[in-house]
Amino acid sequence: MSSTYGESLKLSIFGQSHGPAIGMTLDGIPAGLAVDLEKLGKFLDRRAPGRNHISTPRREEDRPEFLSGILDGRTCGAPIAAVIWNHNTRSGDYAGLKVCPRPGHADYTAQVKYHGFQDSAGGGHFSGRLTAPLCVAGGLCLQWLEDLGIRVAAHIAKIGPVEDQSFDPVVPDLEAVGADFPVIDPARGDKMRQLISQARSKGDSVGGMIECCVTGLPAGLGDPMFGGMESRIGQIVYGIPAVKGLDFGAGYRVAGMYGSENNDPYTVREGRVVTTTNHAGGILGGITNGMPLIFRVAVKPTPSISLPQTTVSLETMEPTPLQVRGRHDPCIVPRAVPVVEAAAAIGIYDAILSDPSRHRRAF
Amino acid sequence: MSSTYGESLKLSIFGQSHGPAIGMTLDGIPAGLAVDLEKLGKFLDRRAPGRNHISTPRREEDRPEFLSGILDGRTCGAPIAAVIWNHNTRSGDYAGLKVCPRPGHADYTAQVKYHGFQDSAGGGHFSGRLTAPLCVAGGLCLQWLEDLGIRVAAHIAKIGPVEDQSFDPVVPDLEAVGADFPVIDPARGDKMRQLISQARSKGDSVGGMIECCVTGLPAGLGDPMFGGMESRIGQIVYGIPAVKGLDFGAGYRVAGMYGSENNDPYTVREGRVVTTTNHAGGILGGITNGMPLIFRVAVKPTPSISLPQTTVSLETMEPTPLQVRGRHDPCIVPRAVPVVEAAAAIGIYDAILSDPSRHRRAF
Amino acid sequence: MSSTYGESLKLSIFGQSHGPAIGMTLDGIPAGLAVDLEKLGKFLDRRAPGRNHISTPRREEDRPEFLSGILDGRTCGAPIAAVIWNHNTRSGDYAGLKVCPRPGHADYTAQVKYHGFQDSAGGGHFSGRLTAPLCVAGGLCLQWLEDLGIRVAAHIAKIGPVEDQSFDPVVPDLEAVGADFPVIDPARGDKMRQLISQARSKGDSVGGMIECCVTGLPAGLGDPMFGGMESRIGQIVYGIPAVKGLDFGAGYRVAGMYGSENNDPYTVREGRVVTTTNHAGGILGGITNGMPLIFRVAVKPTPSISLPQTTVSLETMEPTPLQVRGRHDPCIVPRAVPVVEAAAAIGIYDAILSDPSRHRRAF
Amino acid sequence: MSSTYGESLKLSIFGQSHGPAIGMTLDGIPAGLAVDLEKLGKFLDRRAPGRNHISTPRREEDRPEFLSGILDGRTCGAPIAAVIWNHNTRSGDYAGLKVCPRPGHADYTAQVKYHGFQDSAGGGHFSGRLTAPLCVAGGLCLQWLEDLGIRVAAHIAKIGPVEDQSFDPVVPDLEAVGADFPVIDPARGDKMRQLISQARSKGDSVGGMIECCVTGLPAGLGDPMFGGMESRIGQIVYGIPAVKGLDFGAGYRVAGMYGSENNDPYTVREGRVVTTTNHAGGILGGITNGMPLIFRVAVKPTPSISLPQTTVSLETMEPTPLQVRGRHDPCIVPRAVPVVEAAAAIGIYDAILSDPSRHRRAF
Repeated sequence: MSSTYGESLKLSIFGQSHGPAIGMTLDGIPAGLAVDLEKLGKFLDRRAPGRNHISTPRREEDRPEFLSGILDGRTCGAPIAAVIWNHNTRSGDYAGLKVCPRPGHADYTAQVKYHGFQDSAGGGHFSGRLTAPLCVAGGLCLQWLEDLGIRVAAHIAKIGPVEDQSFDPVVPDLEAVGADFPVIDPARGDKMRQLISQARSKGDSVGGMIECCVTGLPAGLGDPMFGGMESRIGQIVYGIPAVKGLDFGAGYRVAGMYGSENNDPYTVREGRVVTTTNHAGGILGGITNGMPLIFRVAVKPTPSISLPQTTVSLETMEPTPLQVRGRHDPCIVPRAVPVVEAAAAIGIYDAILSDPSRHRRAF
Repeated sequence: MSSTYGESLKLSIFGQSHGPAIGMTLDGIPAGLAVDLEKLGKFLDRRAPGRNHISTPRREEDRPEFLSGILDGRTCGAPIAAVIWNHNTRSGDYAGLKVCPRPGHADYTAQVKYHGFQDSAGGGHFSGRLTAPLCVAGGLCLQWLEDLGIRVAAHIAKIGPVEDQSFDPVVPDLEAVGADFPVIDPARGDKMRQLISQARSKGDSVGGMIECCVTGLPAGLGDPMFGGMESRIGQIVYGIPAVKGLDFGAGYRVAGMYGSENNDPYTVREGRVVTTTNHAGGILGGITNGMPLIFRVAVKPTPSISLPQTTVSLETMEPTPLQVRGRHDPCIVPRAVPVVEAAAAIGIYDAILSDPSRHRRAF
Repeated sequence: MSSTYGESLKLSIFGQSHGPAIGMTLDGIPAGLAVDLEKLGKFLDRRAPGRNHISTPRREEDRPEFLSGILDGRTCGAPIAAVIWNHNTRSGDYAGLKVCPRPGHADYTAQVKYHGFQDSAGGGHFSGRLTAPLCVAGGLCLQWLEDLGIRVAAHIAKIGPVEDQSFDPVVPDLEAVGADFPVIDPARGDKMRQLISQARSKGDSVGGMIECCVTGLPAGLGDPMFGGMESRIGQIVYGIPAVKGLDFGAGYRVAGMYGSENNDPYTVREGRVVTTTNHAGGILGGITNGMPLIFRVAVKPTPSISLPQTTVSLETMEPTPLQVRGRHDPCIVPRAVPVVEAAAAIGIYDAILSDPSRHRRAF
Repeated sequence: MSSTYGESLKLSIFGQSHGPAIGMTLDGIPAGLAVDLEKLGKFLDRRAPGRNHISTPRREEDRPEFLSGILDGRTCGAPIAAVIWNHNTRSGDYAGLKVCPRPGHADYTAQVKYHGFQDSAGGGHFSGRLTAPLCVAGGLCLQWLEDLGIRVAAHIAKIGPVEDQSFDPVVPDLEAVGADFPVIDPARGDKMRQLISQARSKGDSVGGMIECCVTGLPAGLGDPMFGGMESRIGQIVYGIPAVKGLDFGAGYRVAGMYGSENNDPYTVREGRVVTTTNHAGGILGGITNGMPLIFRVAVKPTPSISLPQTTVSLETMEPTPLQVRGRHDPCIVPRAVPVVEAAAAIGIYDAILSDPSRHRRAF
């Protein structure tokens, strides 16, 4: 496992924040699928820092260079490999992290796990920058899902105490998400931006929540038990740094519901079996039921803050004050929105490729 | 994937509710580990129905019969296989489920996925009964973790609106969980039982939440990205039927927190690096930090209710009323508590077996 | 890994020779595939001992009991589990094997690997008896392949110095293999039987070779590199105890050939692209080319002989004479013929289920 | 599967012969292992073309550029990624291969599998050039094995009819292999070179055999059945293009042996349990017994010949003559020697990382 995901597709993510490059390989993809690199670039731009004037000022050029697997605008059946070059060279800024680990970061756990041999510059392999190659893979899967009539969209559901509207769980309007700032209700989006600005000015950061919705899925996708859609999405979504919570459909609210409320009654609409409510989030027994697949993700406030904190010197084993310098992203939630879409797309596309029920008629 | 889990250990769960037997195989376990079958039996009793007089009256004897892998009270290095025989033979009760799927169950999704060939009696492979072999595997892992000084305990955190106390996230007292009814505060436990009884008398069911805590874990366990502890636990916990939410540490509350609140400051206690708070739930960058690993699970109300519901006849494609007969468990949360412990134990023990950092010194 | 195989299907073999039962689980199989248990029984009979009056007199009843995954004569999509009960109870015969390991057996390597905790009775998990559940899984795959027009047949290619005719590599006649004794040329079969009888009367054993041929395969099956048909078949065929060699098509003879001889020229026959020779054994670049897939397997003489041998006492660390008692199979090659067919069928059926090229048109 | 290998380590190979770059990612490697890039370069030189003046004149610079996973000369725990840039740009030479597939190449099978979307230039992903990243991964594993006292060496066992001496299977001298031309007996090496030159001058190619030996392995490595050393080595060695046969120890000769000959008697030497012969090739029951692990590989003559051949036009479906232009390597066996060492090293190092028996004492 580690930085490898997938049952039928095999995604491998590599790179450290300040190494020569980060990248990904994606194996197991059928040949002949169209790839639109311009569209991919636009998707990656949504994750890029600095575009909302509210995130980290470090400028990145996250254009991937494809090394293999794509020929004349289509997959050629060979593994797809792409790299994104790092332009921020290693510097002395991070020298002390192995001695005085930053609270909330992976500095300490990496130090213990890798016995001090880890690359700690810029967070190394634990950097949020590693979500860029995840978005490369996910951006491709999004295109292939779209070819099958499947759409994935996410928005900020909450920042601090400010909540956005939710998608209608039965008839969601994925187009309602703003292009500039990914919320459904622009007024609440403005409040969120204010909150983020305030956190920045204090040298603090703030967390939030993301809601993701997938439409156009056929019924019958996924497997029982550990191959269920929740397990598949759970494994990849929890691979995104800073995610600390995930629920599906009515999610945490089910804990306070009666069965008679939570059960989604069946009916028929336009000749198709549908449910009149969607507390299940489109999944029953791990398998899609043809309704929108909906899940929410809790994202912790980025641990990178410039306020004074307390850590321990691993040399002296004494508590010691710590002030992290540099300018940091006060809220990663807006940039995490396309990352969540990417993760969902990879998990779902892998489930499609892994579905044995498609084989019986296909041979 | 499907009903198979694990990186270094390979767990495979099989069986249908009304087939001859259910069971599991567990491969990749080192030889020479002690197995206490009496202790395992007591653990399985905690999941067994009927013990609290509040769950399903169907009586099961969930004693596993071990077919391989254990010799003279120790693992012998060969795959461990165990079966639990089904004593409730197939009956006509479930004949109509393929035509009129029960809301909230996997009847419809199984019908679509398996083209009508699925075993629908008693929910087939989707039955909650399949958590019994999961508990066999997990009960073994719990013993082996205990040999390493690692303890896992869960309790009911919530039923409907009634909440139990939480574990202290820094210095949890795992012994505080009641033996009879798994709550920390017996008074709240009584209220929960009342609530469950009321749901039963109405022919309804009720959902809840479970909190699980793991102590004694070393720092440095788990991997970055998709091999992180959240991903590992996420994949297996979401394999438990009825789980719709999962969060770690401060979990969903992080969405409303500032970084300065959420970051856990480091200090030194008894010569060890610890944190003074534990919002991270013992995990940073996917890797354990040596603090208690804490997560919460949302369990939906069991869809088996006897109140009238609406479904669709897949023959006529018309909405049709449905009333499910038989006596059902009005709340599976109490029985799910040991299942969550079992799942956690399997995920953690697999992470231990998969840890390459242990190899370097071991060869 | 260990006793688990497969990319899309997941086969898990368990059991020890003298434990309560041996068995297998097979997950990832599409629902609705027909299963003919009588036909499966006949296939398993070909592996059963004692039928040629030339193998071990220990009588087994290798009828599998299916616990799950099959309903009304068809797969139901849930994992298939089957057990075969052991009737030979553990006895004192094998007490000394942990001290004085038999040459050619796994006694010593198991002792080192499992630190003495292994089940050594009857060879434990290393027993040739474990090929029975492999044949259960393989016998099922053979039926499903036959439904797709794919046939697998093997015969004894050699015993000691006596060689059978080979299959015609371009137009093989799979029906030519004898039902009683699996050779193409009955006269050579008689010589083989004599040789085996002579080995038995001396208390010795003899090795041999098996040729296996698969017809009806479509072109385009398998993957480059480690997912090639040779790699897939290699991993499972080398999982059969006693196999020490494997080659494909012209195989070892290619080492002495020129490219101009070895290259198979293309031509057209009945509207299909075919080759006029088949040195490639039906595989180019790891992928089937539509010609018969042919491979040969070298089987070592069973190490169970009653002639005096030399071993070492692991207690005294001194060389010591050894004479193994009991009546043993002087040649396992005839019984290994269906085992090789089973292994080939599993590997090929897994390749079919894993083929992403089938998905593109199927969704 | 496809181009991905490994149980505990995860190797992924990517690239096409005439794409921008080829490369590999290698995940799951412990942190802190030393990496000697100069030594790696020397190992890669052994595979590079043109060094014996008998292989393809196309000049390559196969120096890998490491993008991640290595810091200050040691592994840092993050996935290792390396690329080798291609300097031969795509040209028109290969335009016709999709219409008129070359005999013995993967042209036709790729065309069928990938529906014409494959990159056929230079053989694409099927090119022997893809063994360069395999050698990068393997060259690293060789170094880490050497740190554990394990050595891997291979030599040309045969070219056409000319055979080299074999390693002594009990006390092999790995140093005896020539540095210039990898044979034990230089006189036979000269004959092989003559044979290769003759093949070149005729526009033909010639096959051969490679023997590989691994010393210093502990007893107890590997698993039963599909995780046995033969299965592990089988899967990766058959991933090398052109390999058509593989046997272990006495290998194909076991088919003609009696058990009393083939069984390796045990004795004690310098306090260690050893065998006096080594027909088992160091493996019993899939597990190493501490003796040298020995296997042989049959390599087909490269299909690239300039002699006239017959193929089929996939457009007209008519047989058509074919003459492949360009200068080709008349014998890839010498260059395949380090590739076989690399494959063996990867398979063995993965088995070491996967060994659960090491864990019990390590925690």
